[in-house]
Amino acid sequence: MTQAHPIAELWRGGQVESIHAGHAVICDGAGQVVETWGDPSAVIFPRSSCKMVQALPLIESGAAAAAGLSDRQLALACASHQGAAIHTGMVTTWLADLGLRDDDLRCGAHMPNDTGARDALICSHTAPCQMHNNCSGKHSGFLTLNRHLKAGPDYVEIDHPVQRAVKAAFEEVTGETSQGYGIDGCSAPNFTTTVTGLARAMAAFAAASEGDARGRAMVRLRTAMASHPELVAGEGRACTELMRAMGGRVAIKTGAEGVFVAILPEQRLGMAVKIADGTPRAAELAIAALLVRAGVLERDHPATRKRLDAVQTNWRGFETGALKAAPGFPG
Amino acid sequence: MTQAHPIAELWRGGQVESIHAGHAVICDGAGQVVETWGDPSAVIFPRSSCKMVQALPLIESGAAAAAGLSDRQLALACASHQGAAIHTGMVTTWLADLGLRDDDLRCGAHMPNDTGARDALICSHTAPCQMHNNCSGKHSGFLTLNRHLKAGPDYVEIDHPVQRAVKAAFEEVTGETSQGYGIDGCSAPNFTTTVTGLARAMAAFAAASEGDARGRAMVRLRTAMASHPELVAGEGRACTELMRAMGGRVAIKTGAEGVFVAILPEQRLGMAVKIADGTPRAAELAIAALLVRAGVLERDHPATRKRLDAVQTNWRGFETGALKAAPGFPG
Repeated sequence: MTQAHPIAELWRGGQVESIHAGHAVICDGAGQVVETWGDPSAVIFPRSSCKMVQALPLIESGAAAAAGLSDRQLALACASHQGAAIHTGMVTTWLADLGLRDDDLRCGAHMPNDTGARDALICSHTAPCQMHNNCSGKHSGFLTLNRHLKAGPDYVEIDHPVQRAVKAAFEEVTGETSQGYGIDGCSAPNFTTTVTGLARAMAAFAAASEGDARGRAMVRLRTAMASHPELVAGEGRACTELMRAMGGRVAIKTGAEGVFVAILPEQRLGMAVKIADGTPRAAELAIAALLVRAGVLERDHPATRKRLDAVQTNWRGFETGALKAAPGFPG
Repeated sequence: MTQAHPIAELWRGGQVESIHAGHAVICDGAGQVVETWGDPSAVIFPRSSCKMVQALPLIESGAAAAAGLSDRQLALACASHQGAAIHTGMVTTWLADLGLRDDDLRCGAHMPNDTGARDALICSHTAPCQMHNNCSGKHSGFLTLNRHLKAGPDYVEIDHPVQRAVKAAFEEVTGETSQGYGIDGCSAPNFTTTVTGLARAMAAFAAASEGDARGRAMVRLRTAMASHPELVAGEGRACTELMRAMGGRVAIKTGAEGVFVAILPEQRLGMAVKIADGTPRAAELAIAALLVRAGVLERDHPATRKRLDAVQTNWRGFETGALKAAPGFPG
């Protein structure tokens, strides 16, 4: 197997302190590999980076139209959100529209990452609910599809019609038979693919046109994401800040354990990155570097500089080093 | 240069999701290398793992005795603490005893990692002070030495007598001339060494006897750390839980960016681990595995199992995978 390629280096005091390696693939609209770093055939869990794929059956089944879902709701279905009021408020309404409640979710509860929402819960001695889970938008989408399919309540089971539909869509857009699956943090199955398969899926989203049902679903999802960056993650987060910096031209999405993907419709390109050690700072650097190189992200934009050549400061605000692209990787 | 050695693997759904590689060295009491993984000559920043070395001049100068420092204070001088009441209370008293206050510290302020202390600050709308900084015990030690040396207030400057004394001790116990330094999160200089140099320093602590001033300082510091695990880190943390599990026989210390060290007096061994990508979960696994192998830590102790073969669960408490030692590394 090809080695992981050096991607990011943390510098301190004029020398490298830590290093991250990984795999990256760029595919074109025909599903052909354009460029690779590391091992393009490395089998990975896309984790939350494939939420737009998991949302395809929601639209293609007619469930989204039947429920009258807005583009904002579809963006939230593709989100790993912060649990800020803007996110949990939408989930609350969405569930109510379905005649459902928090207990019908199967994602589990965790403290929101949004500082204001978290502090409000702490100071009112209130436990977080499942709506605060960063995946609650995706799960609201699953519940919407589930109502349409009239299937049972345990929609995250591997053999449930919702997950069977997700798996079928996933294998079609990656162009691969998935070798297996794991259980994600939100209890949903997460199917494996190669880095190339994930990049190919993103390229399919990038090259999609409205000529058929899948193309229409892909265009709608990528547009919803790129048009509502604040819903896809939250303030301060890479997905939100970088999509804003690109002005709606590109959709990007992070996944746990160092995954990042990008959909570039104008260039008809799809990108996928997996950091072998799972570290987000390196995945953010990698996707920013590839987006700069593709000409869709400004090198000197503050959102870029926060991830690429990111200055590291200490508790007194002194510069201690920087996170830089590794030799041989764009940046 | 030798490659980093695979150390830890994160498993999900029956396959490896992420992998960590690094360097580890075990030295004996004579300073000889006993065993290595990866590159023993890799130059690293020990970060907080060398706080017991940084505390040597505090004792050897006579400053600790002049100030009447207790073993508990010396343990706190070697700590990366949680900022719990037990820690900040001691720093408050320590500074008062010196006739100093929070403003005299140079470590900077950050939110404490102790949940109770953090929540109390948040809900009372109170900003953290420098005493909450995880390094405030080390800095109280620096201030104690500084008063003894009658030097200027900016004790973290590279050419300040406090840091010159630290550098001299560091080079003596590592047996190497440091190739450089970086500025740590707490603004103090952090001198580079090889992984072997760091392991050799820990072996010197392990083999120390009370026959000379350095030996007495080393015995006192390692004993203070091993006897007060709750002060060296805090509840839930690896240093505290693993030292408790070893019942005072071994002193261990973590450092940022994937460093971990251990001092084994009975075996007269020193250990040093650096994870190349800087990830704490892998450093904790590595040191736990090496301590089990050395016969000082029980394989089935809950504190061990939390780091070695650590079961990963999701937000509903379902098992999703495990963090395991990589092939070829003990575990």
